[in-house]
This record gives sequence, structure tokens and C-alpha cells, in this order.
Amino acid sequence: MKRTIYLKKKALAEAKEIVSTKLANLIQLETETISVPHSVGRVTAEPVFAKISSPPFHCAAMDGIAVKAKSTVGATEESPKLLRINKEAFFVNTGNPIPPGTDSVIMIEDVHILDSEKVEIREASYPWQHVRAIGEDILTTEMVFPENHRITPYDLGALLACGHQEVKVWKKPRVLIIPTGSELMDPEQTDLKNISGIIESNSYVLSALIHQDGGNPIRRPIVNDDPLEIRKVLVSIEQEADLILIIAGSSAGSEDYTRSIIEESGEVMVHGISMMPGKPTLLGRFRARPIIGIPGYPVSAIIAYEELVRPILYQSLHLLEPQRPKLKVLPTRKLASKLGTEEFLRVKIGKVGEKFLATPLPRGAGMVTSLTQADGIIRIPPLSEGLDENEATEVELLKPLDEIANTVMMVGSHDLTLDLLANLLGRYYPPIFLSSHSVGSLGGILAIKKGNCHMAGSHLLDPETGEYNFPYIHTYLNRIEVIVIHLVFREQGLMIQRDNPKKIKGLGDLLRKDITFINRQKGSGTRILLDHTLKTLSLDSNQIRGYEREEFTHMAVASAVASGIADAGLGILPAAKAMNLDFIPIAKERYDLIIPTVYFEDAKVERVIETVRSEEFKRIVSQLGGYDVSRTGEELT
Amino acid sequence: MKRTIYLKKKALAEAKEIVSTKLANLIQLETETISVPHSVGRVTAEPVFAKISSPPFHCAAMDGIAVKAKSTVGATEESPKLLRINKEAFFVNTGNPIPPGTDSVIMIEDVHILDSEKVEIREASYPWQHVRAIGEDILTTEMVFPENHRITPYDLGALLACGHQEVKVWKKPRVLIIPTGSELMDPEQTDLKNISGIIESNSYVLSALIHQDGGNPIRRPIVNDDPLEIRKVLVSIEQEADLILIIAGSSAGSEDYTRSIIEESGEVMVHGISMMPGKPTLLGRFRARPIIGIPGYPVSAIIAYEELVRPILYQSLHLLEPQRPKLKVLPTRKLASKLGTEEFLRVKIGKVGEKFLATPLPRGAGMVTSLTQADGIIRIPPLSEGLDENEATEVELLKPLDEIANTVMMVGSHDLTLDLLANLLGRYYPPIFLSSHSVGSLGGILAIKKGNCHMAGSHLLDPETGEYNFPYIHTYLNRIEVIVIHLVFREQGLMIQRDNPKKIKGLGDLLRKDITFINRQKGSGTRILLDHTLKTLSLDSNQIRGYEREEFTHMAVASAVASGIADAGLGILPAAKAMNLDFIPIAKERYDLIIPTVYFEDAKVERVIETVRSEEFKRIVSQLGGYDVSRTGEELT
Repeated sequence: MKRTIYLKKKALAEAKEIVSTKLANLIQLETETISVPHSVGRVTAEPVFAKISSPPFHCAAMDGIAVKAKSTVGATEESPKLLRINKEAFFVNTGNPIPPGTDSVIMIEDVHILDSEKVEIREASYPWQHVRAIGEDILTTEMVFPENHRITPYDLGALLACGHQEVKVWKKPRVLIIPTGSELMDPEQTDLKNISGIIESNSYVLSALIHQDGGNPIRRPIVNDDPLEIRKVLVSIEQEADLILIIAGSSAGSEDYTRSIIEESGEVMVHGISMMPGKPTLLGRFRARPIIGIPGYPVSAIIAYEELVRPILYQSLHLLEPQRPKLKVLPTRKLASKLGTEEFLRVKIGKVGEKFLATPLPRGAGMVTSLTQADGIIRIPPLSEGLDENEATEVELLKPLDEIANTVMMVGSHDLTLDLLANLLGRYYPPIFLSSHSVGSLGGILAIKKGNCHMAGSHLLDPETGEYNFPYIHTYLNRIEVIVIHLVFREQGLMIQRDNPKKIKGLGDLLRKDITFINRQKGSGTRILLDHTLKTLSLDSNQIRGYEREEFTHMAVASAVASGIADAGLGILPAAKAMNLDFIPIAKERYDLIIPTVYFEDAKVERVIETVRSEEFKRIVSQLGGYDVSRTGEELT
Repeated sequence: MKRTIYLKKKALAEAKEIVSTKLANLIQLETETISVPHSVGRVTAEPVFAKISSPPFHCAAMDGIAVKAKSTVGATEESPKLLRINKEAFFVNTGNPIPPGTDSVIMIEDVHILDSEKVEIREASYPWQHVRAIGEDILTTEMVFPENHRITPYDLGALLACGHQEVKVWKKPRVLIIPTGSELMDPEQTDLKNISGIIESNSYVLSALIHQDGGNPIRRPIVNDDPLEIRKVLVSIEQEADLILIIAGSSAGSEDYTRSIIEESGEVMVHGISMMPGKPTLLGRFRARPIIGIPGYPVSAIIAYEELVRPILYQSLHLLEPQRPKLKVLPTRKLASKLGTEEFLRVKIGKVGEKFLATPLPRGAGMVTSLTQADGIIRIPPLSEGLDENEATEVELLKPLDEIANTVMMVGSHDLTLDLLANLLGRYYPPIFLSSHSVGSLGGILAIKKGNCHMAGSHLLDPETGEYNFPYIHTYLNRIEVIVIHLVFREQGLMIQRDNPKKIKGLGDLLRKDITFINRQKGSGTRILLDHTLKTLSLDSNQIRGYEREEFTHMAVASAVASGIADAGLGILPAAKAMNLDFIPIAKERYDLIIPTVYFEDAKVERVIETVRSEEFKRIVSQLGGYDVSRTGEELT
């Protein structure tokens, strides 16, 4: 079996240089003539000269009478002047041409109509008073827009006013998108009940991005990993494409044929780029067409598109590529990065006090939610080994700054009701956003200590006193004044496979050799509850298989049980229900929101509390099951 | 004749409050279910929960073999391990589910295939190595997006991956647009050769803006100024509209019926807003629908839309209204503004050295080019009487900052070849923009003195020495080192009506009583040339009718002659040709570019000089007629 290996990997800057000098200029767009009302966003292919002036004649700038200024000389309050209608005075409305021989308009408010034949005026007018002269806005033959100008909504007004009903623009670059991979399934043909492949979504994401960037995306059906088939498609579409994107098939794997197919009928210029995600990107030419091999992981595909395809589209349209707004942020923790690789780190950003804080999202190239949830992207350059906590760095914003500033940053333990809370908040206008980051209860309290969040969600049991949260607040936050708002009581229990095939009855069964457990991370309230309960029952955690494997959320634990990775895990009822698991109640615990007093009167935090206290929130939480909302919203002391 | 007068004018802030509390909440959008690939930009009408996990099963994260990690224990370089294909080792590609019983993937690069039945491995694998666990990205039942979330291209990836092919969104708000005015002509029905009305363009501009803001614009045909007709249209469309815009007819003029029609069948809440442009805006309710009377002047219409209609659209869609990026700028001259009125001043912005400078564009509400050419808008609040020169102020940007930073600011005399130069520059990638501001030759030299431009265009004759430009440079720029690049020689002459009905033969005829002249402004090279030549010929300018009426460009002078305002004006041949005038040559003059040495090596200024020196530029200038390019591009000393 012949396997491809990467060409010598290229730095991203080098790859971008090749894109600009060797790929983009393979595209020569044709022109087309389209109607002006449909031309917004399109790019002029030639300068536009005014066909007529605007206004096209001397016209009234006010409703009133058109007169010859000379005929009004001497009119005053004391000695008004009479003018004969349709002989010396002509009624005109704003925009009407003024009749020949007139050069001035008197506002209707200053005209005294005596009868159907005469008007009286009490002030002289001056020449060109309230008259818009021909060509005041646009003069015939004047250049209104240069070539390579992107047409805005405002521009329609100028184009129409100077006599253009049509405009010659560059045709949109046609981008053919070919998803490849025998494991892929078309979303429309996917039977969700019996899923055997990966749903192909990259081509739709890329189509939408291409559309936004002024291109004309043309999605082709999925092609199997078969070199003959792939080649056949490329040959058949090459004539109708300005640019070809072939998704997947360019990594150094067993069934990646893209490179050899392109080498046969063109040239591979770059294969492998020192960037993460996006390493397996390929740049080349298939016959006369630029072709880009896009990696198959969703985040890689998007980054490869944005770094290497988007510039081609803008260059072919003779436009400057738009730049994302930038912001200085402080990372909430150390961010290591591989030397020699340009890394694109997706982050959540929160404005806490006056600081903008960036918390990294998962780095995996398969995690599309690391982009959909991201507020920005930090580029870590190849010569950096990463960033230290609180080392100011620049982030490229993916969301508007005021949306970020309208976000309540919550850090701490995970609970399903937080999603419901976030959703209810989104019903407000202007919307308040809730961003919750799962690091466990103790992590939340420490985030408050560092000043990294507006609130923390916590269900920390103190084994000594049996009290929740307050003992930890006293220990860790002695210098920070906080207010504690009770969110919910919730049931914790063992989540086990449906119909309990292993006959688990309680925590004691976890010590059995045929049982694999899945744990939560240290510092999480659920872990403390587990350890406390095991101790109470004198059960030795060292004897529990899987005790060392940690997950960060209830749902991740439930998923591990559902998929057979483990037989049991501790978590909450709704998580078990969501994954169709059985549930053995173990304990009821208290989950509270801890809020530094300084943020308690912040308008957006107030909105969160209001929402917690709303009947609607309590109603939908009750529906989940496993929750007790009898004291929800109370301030605890 | 009954005339409307304004209700007590409202401050803009007050009007916006009424929009938010009384108009926007009249809109209750319905929902619709649309296909995910077409949902970008739409807003979710309910939270979206994952139908399936992504990935939907444990799958290979690499091409290779799936194995049970336990079966690889002990494999090393020294003692490799054999695994039987399809019994202990299963070939998988990235994305394939791993077979039951396996929990680990070994990269194909580390697999040694011995024959069709056996592979050898030289390193043990660990559980879950190169495996993407079910739900690693998205877990079934998890909330993927809250309600009122605007869908991005990235989001398509998440929606499709978790099993959604359709999504429930808010219907787009339907905005009915009714242009009114008997003087209006539909662009498509306009005979450019014989124009008798104003081309209706506002409805198209507003449609494009509504489309950008997520609404569904529905343009109605033009309605005459007839109250019965207007009322009939309103009644007929009211049911199919979420919001009605009625353009024009709301000023305090003679044929403005909007207000009384609305009062009859609803309520007028605001009529007249203390803003400029946009004063005659009306806010009300027609039956159950919010209705806004939009002023008829193009700039007023746009400002009224952006300040009062756009917020309604975003509020009805439960979205935050996007804010324009802001920038601190310095006005290049004093900007007076009326106390009590919020003024929206359109400005060109240039980055000269490290300063961002704002030069005001014409203020007239009829000047749509004051918006198409604008880089930004300065809001002068009601309690300000304006801004002083060099008083730092905030501007809302209409164009990307890097486009502004890529603009060469040229100030000075006007010449038609500057448009051609700007257009040729636009052919470059990345584009360089040339912004030229006509203030006359001397104004340009003074702008250099103040540090307000990158270059000045000048054709100033020194009557004493007969030399061009240098004597003025020595007088005004003694402390600033400049380089002078020759642009063109051009012919100045008298522009007169076609076929010379008044039998003008030369400057001497300007003293005739039956001749009206139109002049250029003081400080312009053309004015100096005129005054010098009159003096040489001993002609008394006091005897010239119209000598005191000044225009700022050649084309404006030509237009005045063409329209009969004047019989003659001094200007250049191409201006006369453009307006179909006759031309009597008077003198040949030199037009140069004066460039401070500090900017001469600025990359974008270099591009301008390169373009001036290009054969293409000389070719197209020669075609205009009246220009001599024999020394174009030379550096003069």
C-alpha cells in the first residue's frame, strides 16, 4: 500500500504568499451586467460615470412658489408685493422643476394666497433661494464610482439618481466544493436512528462562508475514497470552476489520494502547513485551476478556509480582505503551545470589572462547538511556546464587543438548569448572555478569588459540618464579600445502564471486580460528595475500577455509561434521563450561586437573579425532574 | 388650503425611546421552519437541543488499526507484537466507528503490515488512544443554541452534526415601503433623454438596508400626492405588513397628507425630530401596525431609517443592534452646528502621519454623495454648537479602518485627471484609494502647511515671475521640505454655450452688459489665471456681471453655463466637452503635485507616483483632450 507523506511543511506566512502570488492570479473573473437594485455587495468591473445630473434640472428645494427674484425686490412687511399666479408666481412642490424664467423659491409658509389669481409676499427673495441647482449632487459625466468598488446600499441611491439602471460587475468567483470520504453521510439522507457514518457538514459551512465572502459556492455530492472516482469528478467540473476545494483526503493517511491525483494533472505547491488546526492543507493547481485540499476536521476546515481560501476570493474580486476587530485580553490560565506551529486558540471572553478575560475552549480540531461558542481567536505565533496566565495578548473578535460586554461570566460546577437559565435570559431585550464554564465547584470559588468571573455555581459539601458552600467561602474568600443565592436542590445518584444488567444496588457494588466506574474531577462537588459518602460507608476508593478516570460534566459521565465505557457514574437525574439510563438516588444536595457583592448590582447580574426568581424558570426546572425549587432564588446567609 | 405643521419637535433620544417602548412591541413575529443550510443570519425561535451526539459513536481519530489496548501490552521495538487482521486488528479510517471490543487506534504509520493476515506493532497503545469518544463535541439532548440566537456559518456545522436538518426561526419582519410624490419617476420607466421628474431611489436604498438588517422589504409602486390614493394603499397592505414605511409626505408642506391619514386611523406619536438631516420624520400607528413617515431627501431618509427603523427590526428579532466601530479624529476645520439639533455630519477621514483627520462633506440632505463618499459620521449632540478645528472627536466609521489607512489624502485644485488616477489605483491589489478634496490650489498648499494631507494639486501662476507653484511654495512652505511632481499641462479657456449664441470672442466680451459670467473661488489657480490675464489686458473685473458668483470646480462652472445660469466661465476643455459646450482657448497652464518629502517614500504615495508615470495613465489622459502629457511624472526643481 503506497502512502503519502507530507512535503516539507511550510510556515503559514509562506503558504499565504504562495496563495497570493501563484494561486489567486490563476483566477480571471468575467464581467456581467446586473440591475442596480440587486447589485449590493457586488464589485464594479469598470468606473461608473454619471449619465445625467442629479438633480436633473433646477428644482424646488421646498414646497412653495417659484418666482424671479428680481420681481420680489422691495417686498417688506410694511409694503407687501402682489404676484400673479401662473404669471409671476408658480406653485411648486419639493422636487418639481422650476419654470423657465424663475430662479428662486419662496416657502409656502411665507406666501399669502389672496385668491385664485394672486398671492402676496412680504419679503424679497434672493436668486437661487430654496433652489437645488442642476447637478448639485452629481454632475453628468462625473466619475461616480471607480472600478473595483464594492457597492453599498447607499450607492444604489447615487447610481439610480445619475441614470444607471444596470451596472457592470465582476462575476462571483465559482467555488466548487467536493466532499470526499467513504465514511461520510449526506445530512438529508441520514437515518438518525441508525447512524453508521459521520454527517457531512463541512461543505455547508464552507458554502455559507464563501457566500459571505462574495463567492458563488457550488456543492458537489459526496465522493467515495476512490482515486478514479475523485479524478473523474475533478475532470468533469474543472471547466466550470474558478477555484476547487476538495475536502478531506489530504492528510498523510491510507486513503488520501488527492495529492497524487493533482500531481498527475497539475502541480502540488504546498502539502502540510505548520498551523494547528489545519496542518494537512494542500495548495496546488489542477490543470489550469487553483485547487485547495481542505482538512476533514471541522475546525481545521474552517481555519484552512479563512487563512488560505478567503484571501483568494477577495484578491480575485480586487478587494481588501476585511480584518476582524481586535482586543487586548488576559488569559485566565497558562496556554502552552507547540514551538514552530501557528496555533489558533478559540476562547470565551468575559468582561469582569474593567478586565477582558479569555478562557480557552477545547483545542481538538473535531470540536466545532469550540468555534460556535468562541468569542474570539488568539493566534499563537510559531516562535512562541504559549502565553502565561495574565499575560496580555491580542484576540481577533468573532462576536461584537457589546455582546461580549453583555455577557455574565459564570464559572464553577456544571448543572443542566444553567442552560435553561441562559435560554430564558435570551428572551430579554436587549439580550443578556450567560456563559458558563465548567471547572467544578472549587474551581469556581477560586475564579472568584482571582477576579475572573461574575458568579460561581457551587455545591460543595463540608464533610466536617455537613454544611454547603459557606465553609469553603470562609476558607478561600475571606477577603472578598459575596452574596449567596440559592439555585436548586438536586438529587445525586448512580447512573447505570438501562434495566441494570449488572444488578447494581448501591455504592457498595462499585468495589466489585466486574464493575467499571467513571469519576468526576477532583474539586468538583460531585467528587467531594462521592468521597464523603464512601468514607461514611467505609468503602475504599482504591478498590474501585475506573476511579482514576475523570470527566468534567454530568453529561460526559452519563455518556460514558451509555456507551459502555463504564458501568456506573455519580451524577444527577436529568443527565441519566437524557442518556436513557437508570438512576439510583444517593443524596440530595444544595446548588448555590456565589456572587461577589461588587457585581451584585451590575445590571446584567441583576437580570440573572430576576430570571432565577421568575416563575417560568422554576416551572421549567421542575419539569426536568430530580430538582426541588422550593427555595430557589432565596438569599442565604 | 389646510397645511400641516409639526407637532412639538421631539429630541432624538426621546423619539428612540418611543420607538422602543411603543412601536417595536407592536410587532410579534411568527415562526417558520427552514432548512439548516439556508439558515445563516436567521434567528432561532426556540432553543435547539442535540438530537444525536457528535461524533455519534466512538470513532477513529486517525487512519490506522483499531485494537483492544490490553492486547498490545508489552509491545516494544525489541519485542514487537503480532496481531491478526480482522480478529485483533481492524483497519479503520478517520471517522469510522471502531469495532465492538476495541478501544484504541494505532496510527497507520506505526503499523507494519506483514501479509494479508497479520500486522506487527512495536509500541503498546493505551485505552482511548486516537479515539474520539461518542459525544466528545456535542452530547445528545444538550442545548446547542438558545432561542434568539443568530445563526452563523459555523453554526451550520453544529446543527447538522447533532442531527438537525431543519431549524425553527423567526419569520423576517415584513417591511412595506410606499414611496409617495407626484414628482417621482420609477427608475425603470425613466426616459433619460427627456427627464421631467425626480428619479425615485429611496425605496431601493431602504430595501437594501432592510435586507441587510434581517428584514423582508416589500416595495410598493409610487403613489401620487393624493390622500385618497395613499389611504387606499395603506388599508390594502396593512394586513401583510409588520411595519410600514411611507416615504415623503411628512414635511410641513402643501401636499403632505400622511399625518392626517394616520390620525384618522390610528395615532401620530411624534412628528418632527430635532435632528439634521431627518427632521420631518413621523412615528405612529396605522390601525394595529407601526408606521414611520420617512423624509424624502435621500440623506434624511437614510438617517431616519438608521436611527428609528433599524432599532425596530433588531428588537423584533430579539437581537442587539450592531454598533459601528468608532475612532477619534481631528476636524480639519471648525464645524459649526445648530444648538438644540442633533446633527449627523458626513466626513472623509484620512490618516496623515499618525493623525486621523476628518474633513466635512457637503451638509445638504439632498446630497446622497455625501454618504457614498463618506468614511464616517460625526454626531454633534444637541447641546453643542459644533467643534473647533483640531478638537478631537468621535466618528462612527462607515468603512473599514484599513481601507481608510490605505487612502492617499489629496487636497487642492480640482482636475478631471484625478478621477482617472484614482480609478487606475483601484486596479492594484491591495487597493490604494485616492481621496481628493477640492479647495483650490492655495487651499492645498495651506493644507500641507497644516499637515492635513499627503499631497496637494496646484496650478498657481505667479503673476510677477510667470512661474508656476514654486514661488507660492517658497512663500507658504518655507519650513516644509517638498517634492514637486509634474502632472499635466492643460488648456484653460472660456466655456460658452453650444454654437456661441452670444457671439463671444474672448475675455473682452465679458464686460458686455448682455453677458453673465460665472467665476471660480478666490485662491483657485483658475481665478488667479483669470485675474492675471484680465490685468494684462487692462480689463476691469468690476464691470463683469456675475464675477462675484463663485463655484468650486470646473464642472460646476460648466454646468452653470450649460443650464443657462451664466453665459461664460473660465475652465478646462474636458469640462466643456463633458457638458457639450463650446470652448475658446485662453492659456496653457501647468498642474503639479506637491508632496511633503516625509510622505514621498510612503508606500501608498509611491503607488500614486508610479501610476502617474504609467503609460496607461498618459494614454487615457491624452484621450480626454485639452491635456499635454509630454512631461507628466517628471520631478521638477
